[in-house]
Order: sequence, then structure tokens, then C-alpha cells
Amino acid sequence: MLVFVGLGLWDEKDITLRGLEYVKKADVVYVEFYTSKLSVGLKELERAFGREIKMLERKDLEEESYKIIEEAKMKDVVILCAGDPMIATTHSALMLEAERAGVKTRVIHNASIVNAVCGLTGLHNYRFGKSATVSWHRSRTPVDILRQNLSTDAHTLLFLDLHPRPMKIRDALEILFEIDESLKDLYAVGIARAGSDEPIVKCDKAKELLYYDFGEPLHVLVFLAKTLHFMEYECLREFAKAPEEIKALVC
Amino acid sequence: MLVFVGLGLWDEKDITLRGLEYVKKADVVYVEFYTSKLSVGLKELERAFGREIKMLERKDLEEESYKIIEEAKMKDVVILCAGDPMIATTHSALMLEAERAGVKTRVIHNASIVNAVCGLTGLHNYRFGKSATVSWHRSRTPVDILRQNLSTDAHTLLFLDLHPRPMKIRDALEILFEIDESLKDLYAVGIARAGSDEPIVKCDKAKELLYYDFGEPLHVLVFLAKTLHFMEYECLREFAKAPEEIKALVC
Repeated sequence: MLVFVGLGLWDEKDITLRGLEYVKKADVVYVEFYTSKLSVGLKELERAFGREIKMLERKDLEEESYKIIEEAKMKDVVILCAGDPMIATTHSALMLEAERAGVKTRVIHNASIVNAVCGLTGLHNYRFGKSATVSWHRSRTPVDILRQNLSTDAHTLLFLDLHPRPMKIRDALEILFEIDESLKDLYAVGIARAGSDEPIVKCDKAKELLYYDFGEPLHVLVFLAKTLHFMEYECLREFAKAPEEIKALVC
Repeated sequence: MLVFVGLGLWDEKDITLRGLEYVKKADVVYVEFYTSKLSVGLKELERAFGREIKMLERKDLEEESYKIIEEAKMKDVVILCAGDPMIATTHSALMLEAERAGVKTRVIHNASIVNAVCGLTGLHNYRFGKSATVSWHRSRTPVDILRQNLSTDAHTLLFLDLHPRPMKIRDALEILFEIDESLKDLYAVGIARAGSDEPIVKCDKAKELLYYDFGEPLHVLVFLAKTLHFMEYECLREFAKAPEEIKALVC
């Protein structure tokens, strides 16, 4: 059996009771920090969960995934990952491969950044459109997705690349402005260290966020829809120090 | 202090270690099953968490929310809710009210149906557009949102009304077809009891899902984007018994 257990947003205390139960009874426990990271590492998880945990690299999840599948035919294998397991497409590919090989699978869900963003900003979940990743490779995709979402008056969540190093909001904005300078005048919300005790959340025009100090990663970025629900406006003022002028977006 | 603790998707084992810590040390613990439900009720939660829990009704969260805020000025108050606390806009309104009254707030996130849908179907999270609720009042909104999402090639997650009774997929489809008959030929995925050990997931043309037996609520419904990623197609075939003909959507 192959069980994907989400570790949630921040540290070893964000696992669910059900997730911990699977960790305790598994034959082998792996963790991967390739698709997303926590504020703690392997050693802290081993200490908290009271057992040995092995680290998986990218190749173990992709080219050499057959090794995990083979092991899961004989043993109960748990793969731990930050956030929710099924937000990363790497894991759904692995789950598919396992099921096809006749290995039973199970997913223990947890909070992902998608959940945290709504809590930290007060933006309504149902108003988010498609999301995208700003990559160090300077792909146009995030700008295209953002334009599509503006056309349907939806918010856009942008994930920031983690490899080779975690991207900061300033890096992401510089890349986006290079592709489309007109984004500078759109309103956005920068979010740093979601899930921690000390997140930073700041709403302003994108060009202003360039100079805002968000501190250490992980960072994500939300571009606002053309309009705001009144409650979203109120929350952004209170939770994200948004300038009074965004009231003009309330419809 | 006012702490919103998400209970996750299914039962008392889906709370996180951090959430349980807040429950144990709180002065007062409330639960609300108005915005969403679990498979267990108040008594099971009290037994599992080893303390008294009081039930909140809709009016306690809305017209009379000032009572909770007043209490949270003096005591550590926890509000438990199914899924993730910040998916329901009722909770962000209450959090705003608390912060304005000088009450410190905290959110302990958890998995919501949004996470589970990706795990159960293999559909990619980043390809979902705005979501909407199919209500017993027969609002046009879900159809308008679905049309918008099709225009940007995004999937649409539709929540089904919980009041006065939980809506089933068949009810929702009947309401949607009354508003726009042409939806019958779109492909959709019905999902019943997400987060449980025995969810049902079935992909087919919407008109075919009308006759499929999804069993007991809670149900949700996803209308597919115009195109599918190859991996989404493979997952729908494996996890949602999709007909071979959806291969035509792969781009």
C-alpha cells in the first residue's frame, strides 16, 4: 500500500491525527521536499514522529518511481510531503502508476497554500481563477493566465519557483514586469511564510510591492481581480494594510 | 483570543496536532456545522477531544456574532468547523469583526473539499477556475461561472446547497439543466463523500450522471474544462471510470 500524507503548512504539528496514525504503523516512511517545503527538516520530523524517515529526491519520484511502487507491493509505504499531497502533479502521476501496478493507494489530505491564502488575505476562495508558477525560466504562462483571469474578474494565485533557490516576491515581480510592463499598475498581495506564527501580508500596487520587505521565503503572490467584494476590501484593509484607494475596486 | 480550527474532511481524526492543542487549552470550545458538515457529530467530537463542546447555529455566527467576540475578549475561544475555516466567507467576516474589536485571532488551517477533489479525480489544481454553489433557489450564477470558466479553458467546482437539506448530484443537474439545457452534453465528474474511506467518483456526460447512483451526501460536482492535460485524462480513466471518448479532450 502507498499512502500519501500531507504535512500541512508549517511544521511537525500540522500533520493530522489520521496522518500520524499511518506514519506510526507504516513499514517505511519517506519524505520529499522537492515539490514544496516546511519550516522544519528531516531530523525534526524524525524526532517528532519517533521513527526513521528517508529523504526522496526528484529522481526517486520521477524517473525511478518504479522502485517505490515495487516496495509498496510488499510493504506499507508512506510518503510525507508539505502542504496537501495532491496539489503537486508529481504525486498524482505516482498515484496513477501505483494503481495501475495493482498497489492500493490512499491520500491523507491537509491544508495547502491555497487554503492559507484565503485565511490570510480574506479573499474569497470561490473568486480565484486558474493559478500558475513564476519560474526562473521566465515563461509567459503566468502573464497569460493572469490576463485570462482578469477577463473573467477572477483573482490569480501565483506560486514562486523553488529551484534552484526559492524565489522572492521581488524576483517574481521583476520577471513579470519584464514580460508585461503594464502589470506594474495592477493591485496585488504579497504573502510570506503562510502558516507560520509571523506571516507577512501586504496589498498594494504591484510596482510598490517591489520595494516592500517580505523577509525570508517561502513567498507567494496574488493579483487581484478587477473588482472586489465589499468584505474582501474590508479584509484587505485590515489584514493586508491595503491602501484606502482600493475601495475603487468594490463593485 | 479567537481561534478558528479546521476539522478537515471526514471525522475526528482529521484535526491537526496543532488544532488539537488549541482545543485542549481553550477556555471554551464551539463547533458549527452550518457552513459545512462532517460524518460525525458533536458527541463523537466531545468523546474524541475529551471536553465539552457547544454547538453554534447560523444566528450565533451572524446577527449575534457580537456575543462570541465579547467572550473572546476575556477568554480563549475556539470555533471548530468542518474542512478549512477560511473557505466559508462567514468565518472571514467574523475574523474581521474580532480583529476590529481588538481580539487577537488565529486560523488553524486544514484540508477542504477543494484539496480532496484534486486527489480523487487527478484533475490539476492550477486548472480550476472560479467556483460556485448550486442552490435550491435556482440562481443562474453557477451557469454563468461555468460559461466563464469554459471561455478560459478552466474546470469548475460546484458546491451543492446544504440547506434546508443536502443537495444530491441528481438534484443539482436537474436545476442546472432547467437553466441551460445545453449543459447536458458537457463532461462532468460527480464526487460523493470526499475524505471518507469509500468515496464515489464518476466522470461522464452530465446527462448520464443524472442516472448514476452516488449514494448518500455530501456531493459535489466538477464540470471539465474544454481540454484535458494528458495526465488528467489518464487519472479520470483510472480513478473516475471515465468513458474512453473523453480522450478527444486531450490537447
